[in-house]
Amino acid sequence: MKPFIVQRLIEFYDTDTAGIVHFANYYRFMEEAEHALFRSLGLQIKGRLPDGTRFGWPRVASRCSYSAPARYDEIIEIHLRIGRRSTRSLTTSYEFRRGDTKLAEGEMTIAYCTFPNGEKMQATAIPDDVAALLDAAAAEQAG
Amino acid sequence: MKPFIVQRLIEFYDTDTAGIVHFANYYRFMEEAEHALFRSLGLQIKGRLPDGTRFGWPRVASRCSYSAPARYDEIIEIHLRIGRRSTRSLTTSYEFRRGDTKLAEGEMTIAYCTFPNGEKMQATAIPDDVAALLDAAAAEQAG
Amino acid sequence: MKPFIVQRLIEFYDTDTAGIVHFANYYRFMEEAEHALFRSLGLQIKGRLPDGTRFGWPRVASRCSYSAPARYDEIIEIHLRIGRRSTRSLTTSYEFRRGDTKLAEGEMTIAYCTFPNGEKMQATAIPDDVAALLDAAAAEQAG
Amino acid sequence: MKPFIVQRLIEFYDTDTAGIVHFANYYRFMEEAEHALFRSLGLQIKGRLPDGTRFGWPRVASRCSYSAPARYDEIIEIHLRIGRRSTRSLTTSYEFRRGDTKLAEGEMTIAYCTFPNGEKMQATAIPDDVAALLDAAAAEQAG
Repeated sequence: MKPFIVQRLIEFYDTDTAGIVHFANYYRFMEEAEHALFRSLGLQIKGRLPDGTRFGWPRVASRCSYSAPARYDEIIEIHLRIGRRSTRSLTTSYEFRRGDTKLAEGEMTIAYCTFPNGEKMQATAIPDDVAALLDAAAAEQAG
Repeated sequence: MKPFIVQRLIEFYDTDTAGIVHFANYYRFMEEAEHALFRSLGLQIKGRLPDGTRFGWPRVASRCSYSAPARYDEIIEIHLRIGRRSTRSLTTSYEFRRGDTKLAEGEMTIAYCTFPNGEKMQATAIPDDVAALLDAAAAEQAG
Repeated sequence: MKPFIVQRLIEFYDTDTAGIVHFANYYRFMEEAEHALFRSLGLQIKGRLPDGTRFGWPRVASRCSYSAPARYDEIIEIHLRIGRRSTRSLTTSYEFRRGDTKLAEGEMTIAYCTFPNGEKMQATAIPDDVAALLDAAAAEQAG
Repeated sequence: MKPFIVQRLIEFYDTDTAGIVHFANYYRFMEEAEHALFRSLGLQIKGRLPDGTRFGWPRVASRCSYSAPARYDEIIEIHLRIGRRSTRSLTTSYEFRRGDTKLAEGEMTIAYCTFPNGEKMQATAIPDDVAALLDAAAAEQAG
């Protein structure tokens, strides 16, 4: 299983008065990694279809559990694994590491949506070409 | 079941380019409500015991699922319910509402810790007086 | 000079690993106070004119100088004073206090803008009724 | 004048409901660049002297003026220039660019401080070796 790996330097503003990365910021790190995956596949998190219809991938759910703290000026690794893809949603999981130390693990589910006639958002089947790219990336991770 | 309720005005900086509250900020809102509960019970999230030993309640886990978006300038309600309390940890659950609309629901688990001789954090049994206050508040919610 | 005063509880997520409020968050606090002022006058920071044209007040400049730190769980006061109003912009100044201690002082300038035909932003004269409300509030502060 | 240049990808969480980078986040970007400069010189923003005394560089002042917006998924450049160094403080200036477009410019002043006997912060002269490294970097920028 070869994850998609992103490195992240912990900035001063990521930390809190406990001297560690604020727990809510792990969700920002997951978002960064998820968007980096999409970018690496030539996909967009937010954009317009050829016919001009806007699309996006709003969050359905997110979770994280924490085992060891990260601190200012450390470099951490985010290991992203593509999980379940349904007709309309995608789940990705995340492991946060600093060297051999596991810091946290999380999961996020996003759902494909379009705004067909202007502003009203609507759950929509993931387009075939997008689904194919995601499935190929998942297969490569598993391979 | 009478939850502990906190109102929150959505600020401009809570939102993102999708025009809605950024998903990671719900975790900040949960933290706000959790700390408001502690404050209402005369408890602290971080402080020193009578003998000078530092204590805190680091996060063990957090999760949130999202059903409807919140936007700038809206007032939302956070309904906090005290859940399972073990010897060393406390779980609270959260429902986010705007009027009759349920926006999201989440859960967080924190663990009681002390720093006995200086800086090394150690999982510790929740002190009896603190446990009693939390249990009384939970009983009142259930009552 | 009677300022517009907003109270703010310092949240855990406002702080950093130096044990104090992160310096960039004072700009969020200024925004909160500025928007509270607008709300108190029945004005909007972002919205639509009667003819449907979108308007907003993007930032032109901001500054802050820091004299004493604020910490988690403290209540601070933000004293907002309405400063110079030109045809197209508004400057407000801020003093941050905890009791008798001055923590910081800042200033922000925002410019009135409209998006006349769709998305292209354009600097625009502040509407007369909005200017009148701001000037009346400034006169009351000075009175 | 050769500035120290940092590239930054705009993340989703950097933006707000106006569809652009939230103005307060430019201060986070300045901090990132400033800390990257320190790191490149082998200096620390926060640490301990050989005798164990803690030191830091708290903010004295910051300012930013905004000329064009930045948006999600854009890559911006932060051009940092070392400005005035006094006995106890350092001023750096920042220009934000996207290609040939100037987005914003800012300035920050930090002051060298130590915590001589435990926790009470005290303004202190910048150590000679640190001052020499900063001055050499400034001279190289000017050269």
